[in-house]
Amino acid sequence: MKKNLSVAAVLAVAIAATANALAQMKPEDAIKYRQSAMFLVGQNFGPLAAMAQGKMPYDKDAAIMYADIVAFVSKLPLRGFQPGTDTGGNTKAKPEIWENMDDFKAKLEKMQQEAAKLAEVAQGGDFNAVKAQVGETGKSCKACHDKYRNK
Amino acid sequence: MKKNLSVAAVLAVAIAATANALAQMKPEDAIKYRQSAMFLVGQNFGPLAAMAQGKMPYDKDAAIMYADIVAFVSKLPLRGFQPGTDTGGNTKAKPEIWENMDDFKAKLEKMQQEAAKLAEVAQGGDFNAVKAQVGETGKSCKACHDKYRNK
Repeated sequence: MKKNLSVAAVLAVAIAATANALAQMKPEDAIKYRQSAMFLVGQNFGPLAAMAQGKMPYDKDAAIMYADIVAFVSKLPLRGFQPGTDTGGNTKAKPEIWENMDDFKAKLEKMQQEAAKLAEVAQGGDFNAVKAQVGETGKSCKACHDKYRNK
Repeated sequence: MKKNLSVAAVLAVAIAATANALAQMKPEDAIKYRQSAMFLVGQNFGPLAAMAQGKMPYDKDAAIMYADIVAFVSKLPLRGFQPGTDTGGNTKAKPEIWENMDDFKAKLEKMQQEAAKLAEVAQGGDFNAVKAQVGETGKSCKACHDKYRNK
């Protein structure tokens, strides 16, 4: 399984590289695209956080499923942060994103890396390891939200 | 690559099986969950359809990326069709879904299978094969939308 997840990680890099060369979406679609992806990430990370905090019983198979979804879908939002989408819809994205795109991308990539690691750790079924990696992943979400998302 | 996609397919079945045993979401979140997933599927299937119809130049790498996203994300909406979510939000889902859940699931699974096949075919880079499989996948979307989605 680890080998296959590594292949998935390589593929994800290919996705990110290709995405940079893609045609742009309509601004309202781009905003909805990133928000849809972030919502799916949040809905799947939520139960992992609940398990880590002892608010929900740890379930290895469910944790694997949630973590795989978080790892994959976390690759998608970047494409929606295209130029010209700092306003419109009901976006909470701060204009600083487009002023500091390299830093924003670095923070997003850090989150993707932590999420990929979480998917690997989840396979092992060691609750304490999962708990620790949920924490690292959550930190990487928060680092970006604190700086680049309005409340 | 084909081998890895097969592993992804097996994993997807595991996702579906596990999803049935998961805790339910709040109804409004469930509706938003399925709509978010469907939106992402649509935004990635759109360029594939455009390539197939000659409205956009065929790009092998981009087609692979779009098809991989469609194949993965097409596994997600089912979880949002939980009982008690036939009304609420601005859902276009018809109540017939919950009256014919087995048929609805079969149609959804057919679409997932066609999307998985599309991801495999995209790897080959044969435009005519991609075009044909985009057609099959589109038919499987339409079959379900025609019966179970309000205009």
